[in-house]
Amino acid sequence: MKMKMRPVMPDIVTGARIDLGRLRASILEMAAIGATAAGGVTRLTLTDEDRAARDLFARWCADAGLTLRLDDMGTQYARYEGRDPSLAPVLLGSHLDSVPAGGKYDGPLGVLTGLEVVRALRDAGLRGRRAIEIVNFTNEEGARFEPAMVASAVLVGAYTADFVHHRRDATGLRFGDELDRIGYRGDAANRPGAIHAYLELHIEQGPVLESENLPLAAVEGILGIRWFNVTLRGQSQHAGPSPMRSRRDAMVAAGRIIVGLRELALSYPDPVVATVGRLRPVPGVINQIPAEVVMSADVRHWTDEGLAEIAGKAEALMRRIAVEERVEIDIETIQNVPPTRFDPRLVELLDASIQAVGAPSRRMVAGAGHDAKYMNDITPTAMLFVRTIGGMSHCESEEIAWDDARLGAETLLRAALRLAEEP
Amino acid sequence: MKMKMRPVMPDIVTGARIDLGRLRASILEMAAIGATAAGGVTRLTLTDEDRAARDLFARWCADAGLTLRLDDMGTQYARYEGRDPSLAPVLLGSHLDSVPAGGKYDGPLGVLTGLEVVRALRDAGLRGRRAIEIVNFTNEEGARFEPAMVASAVLVGAYTADFVHHRRDATGLRFGDELDRIGYRGDAANRPGAIHAYLELHIEQGPVLESENLPLAAVEGILGIRWFNVTLRGQSQHAGPSPMRSRRDAMVAAGRIIVGLRELALSYPDPVVATVGRLRPVPGVINQIPAEVVMSADVRHWTDEGLAEIAGKAEALMRRIAVEERVEIDIETIQNVPPTRFDPRLVELLDASIQAVGAPSRRMVAGAGHDAKYMNDITPTAMLFVRTIGGMSHCESEEIAWDDARLGAETLLRAALRLAEEP
Repeated sequence: MKMKMRPVMPDIVTGARIDLGRLRASILEMAAIGATAAGGVTRLTLTDEDRAARDLFARWCADAGLTLRLDDMGTQYARYEGRDPSLAPVLLGSHLDSVPAGGKYDGPLGVLTGLEVVRALRDAGLRGRRAIEIVNFTNEEGARFEPAMVASAVLVGAYTADFVHHRRDATGLRFGDELDRIGYRGDAANRPGAIHAYLELHIEQGPVLESENLPLAAVEGILGIRWFNVTLRGQSQHAGPSPMRSRRDAMVAAGRIIVGLRELALSYPDPVVATVGRLRPVPGVINQIPAEVVMSADVRHWTDEGLAEIAGKAEALMRRIAVEERVEIDIETIQNVPPTRFDPRLVELLDASIQAVGAPSRRMVAGAGHDAKYMNDITPTAMLFVRTIGGMSHCESEEIAWDDARLGAETLLRAALRLAEEP
Repeated sequence: MKMKMRPVMPDIVTGARIDLGRLRASILEMAAIGATAAGGVTRLTLTDEDRAARDLFARWCADAGLTLRLDDMGTQYARYEGRDPSLAPVLLGSHLDSVPAGGKYDGPLGVLTGLEVVRALRDAGLRGRRAIEIVNFTNEEGARFEPAMVASAVLVGAYTADFVHHRRDATGLRFGDELDRIGYRGDAANRPGAIHAYLELHIEQGPVLESENLPLAAVEGILGIRWFNVTLRGQSQHAGPSPMRSRRDAMVAAGRIIVGLRELALSYPDPVVATVGRLRPVPGVINQIPAEVVMSADVRHWTDEGLAEIAGKAEALMRRIAVEERVEIDIETIQNVPPTRFDPRLVELLDASIQAVGAPSRRMVAGAGHDAKYMNDITPTAMLFVRTIGGMSHCESEEIAWDDARLGAETLLRAALRLAEEP
């Protein structure tokens, strides 16, 4: 389906105009920090590259006349003041850190589109009733310091600041020490107080919008996740003299579980998924039936009931296969993240804003975690997805179309200004 | 099926009598060398334990009046002279080395039953027309120095002595140096010349005889082996935002291959087998669809045509699944061992000898490699299997029943003496 799109016009409602050239230049200049030879970005949390990215962002914000704050997690807030400074601000944001050999857009697109929105408002001499703050959350990825999304987690009380400051990277360096080293430890008093709403623009990280030929989607929530660690114990025997019918083969049980979980997920509509990403046979040699296989299972659903149901079916499936293959099974639930349901009013606003810029509306549910997940606990939140080419993300070939970036920025501008005008 | 067995009688044909107490004592005394706390044995090739085992075997052979020779691989030959020393001898043998944390029987049972056979003949004042030589082959297991079965391989010209002497263990020590260190480097002139026949008694290492309630089997040959290294390359994506129907999941392809190979092997009668023992996903993390899975496939059949057929079907199956899952596949054949067919006359002799000692006859094909595989290239060869409890081998719980050991020894005595009497 090739879709007809109305040409993107200057926003006649607000008078403000997105400057795609400026947005593009900002994204590419930011991508030069930690750039990899293959066109990607390695910009791990609290490294020199992260510092350089923060410095650049801060300079742009100052140039745009924004007021900067830094909280105790190192999260940056750049405030474009509203007509009534006493009102809770509208937050727009994402993150500037990347995974190793990641892409240019996962994170920065949201931060810099937010910046472009306030640049556009400032150029037009427009100011909302409420302030708009652009947020760069520290350590969204969790690639250097685990867990991920710690800065938004601390904001909502899911972790303490002390817990996060004591996290260590693989070389033993502490989060708090590295925050000091790059000069980005701020004050807990700079955390936002009351927040009117939070909007996060992000690349989709999946192939759905591309396959449907759509540039944007209003994101209604985030899939809930259940992670299992599964241990299968059979009978290790020599691969030669052990007849097929007498075997208790942990690998065969694992193979059937991989296939069975896929079939289970396929029995649900998108975006329900099930994945086996990790699998280790013991001893793992070519001519020995493994005594043991340790594997992961990841199932995701968008409702609490659906997640409980698919997780229950996955467990039953694994136990049934273990019985049939005469292997012992241990199933350990190692993570259980309930689904996130974003604020319906904000989703509706994003949907309407997408249509207003001339794109077809599409709602979807995000498969991966984002800071918006935590922010949703303390303020009305929603996300705006921009089409990712080939569904690629967290890799150097991560790419978007600039026309999509413009549509995303126009949408964010409309939605943000609408929220900022609210009493 | 509980089988009735005639009571085992002194061998009225030969007048010689197996002394089970002596055989048992020898096996247990040998098992004390390198004994593990859990009842097994660790006696790796050319270690101090291997030297102690060789010393003990040599002492017993000298006590039995046998003449000892040592060849350049360290293989020991203990000769019980025949009435006509000019005739080629009958060889009975196996190995005294073990895998790490192996069992008491895999190898020693064959060597020490051979010794018991000549002890019995000597006690009865019997001597065959041909000499009988008991052989302890060096490094059958290949657990310390790869490859396995090097001593018999050198005898038949499959490897040169120089190649073997330069093999190194995991710590860098050389086979030849370790052979010197334990004082067991002999002379290539001591390799056997013409050999009339070779018989190897060994534990079954599988559950077939136990499941059929049979103590012994005449082994007709050894399964041919085809080993594949299979690399599946799909699309690595985040486990969350990647809809099931758009995935190119290397792990799902691997799971289907595991299940498919099992089904393929089950479409053949025993002892045809297929095994996946090794599998590694890359990157192998819980929330990422693996970009790549590297796995092994091991298929075995007892005829050349059968091996070619099942290997071809396995390849076709893997390629079909790869196409269906839209992943790339590389299939590399990393080992191709043709089936071994032992001398039919010797198999017949063992079969008749089993019946003569009062046990039901059962022929079978060995699934694992043995020195008999190489010996078959230079002399008429066959193997005699003794039931293994629970099909366990290469582990500390490896076990046999002593009644089975006696029946095996009686069978070997009959067959060996018959061969030694041949003109």
